[in-house]
Amino acid sequence: MTAFERLLSALSRLPGIGRRSAERIAVRLARDRDGIMKELVEALEAARNSLCGCGLCGSVTPLDRNPCRLCSDPGRDSDALCVVEEPDDIALIERSGAFRGRYHALMGRISPMKGEGPADLRLRTLAQRLDREGFKEVILALSTDVEGDTTASFIMELLKGRPIRVTRLAFGLPAGSGIKYSDPLTLAKAIQGRQQA
Amino acid sequence: MTAFERLLSALSRLPGIGRRSAERIAVRLARDRDGIMKELVEALEAARNSLCGCGLCGSVTPLDRNPCRLCSDPGRDSDALCVVEEPDDIALIERSGAFRGRYHALMGRISPMKGEGPADLRLRTLAQRLDREGFKEVILALSTDVEGDTTASFIMELLKGRPIRVTRLAFGLPAGSGIKYSDPLTLAKAIQGRQQA
Repeated sequence: MTAFERLLSALSRLPGIGRRSAERIAVRLARDRDGIMKELVEALEAARNSLCGCGLCGSVTPLDRNPCRLCSDPGRDSDALCVVEEPDDIALIERSGAFRGRYHALMGRISPMKGEGPADLRLRTLAQRLDREGFKEVILALSTDVEGDTTASFIMELLKGRPIRVTRLAFGLPAGSGIKYSDPLTLAKAIQGRQQA
Repeated sequence: MTAFERLLSALSRLPGIGRRSAERIAVRLARDRDGIMKELVEALEAARNSLCGCGLCGSVTPLDRNPCRLCSDPGRDSDALCVVEEPDDIALIERSGAFRGRYHALMGRISPMKGEGPADLRLRTLAQRLDREGFKEVILALSTDVEGDTTASFIMELLKGRPIRVTRLAFGLPAGSGIKYSDPLTLAKAIQGRQQA
């Protein structure tokens, strides 16, 4: 295997990078050895020497801080676990200020179209955490599309029989918007979920 | 800047990688430090120590072989220069066996939609090569879509006044196919370009 083929093969293993993208990236890197190639090598080495995945929620965390800052914060509510698709969803929920419990990133969702099944998700770790950490509620903060629904159904099936309340985020109109700017499905969900004013 | 932010920034500079893809890749790498992260670092280092871009055609070539094998092959026809979008197009044309001249990869094409203009292409190198290498024909082997057409028009304008024949690949029916499987535009081009049987 030549150095170029080896680089192609390593790039192709990254999420979302197909053969064609890997080729474009490899050519670009080889053509700019002292620019973006050097920068990437150094950034990867720095990351490799200092970062890892949090054993609980799955976010990236410094090597010497695993579990991560959020997972090891004693001030947080340990009754509720919020399940998200990707680690970067956690920052979005934190920014809302509406949740002060624990998190668990699945690292994806069930998508038969993309060949991603339950085995690709962090479901075993989820089951272990439920056994050990004694959560009373699991909030499924998943996408509001077919793949999110499939993933939610799968997890609800998995949690059946456990004394845990399972909830999903509410569907409805986005804040600062109105029915004029809303698609029919969102509007239907908002009507079905209408609440006492 | 943390090690994670630095990695995100380096990944975001790769072609075709947006902020969201960079995050997915960075998280995946950080979570598998001794797997795909290690493999990628080693592949990049090997590539950096042995590969570069050919100063003429733009393909990837070993550091100690610049110009590349094709560009320095004295057995090839030095009258004709085939201009392609990406270096990997060269391998496709070589496989056809129908061209034995020189190549020049533009590294993209003009695409206002993607914010890619003439300045992003290897056009200055193209002009220098035409000055120095004395080609008699430039074959534009570009895509048969709007962006390919725009790029071709731009290059034709650039070559105006030079005593060089500029050609484009023929449009028509693909081999092993028939009018039944052809889209109307391809069919129209095939009729317009019909030849004596």
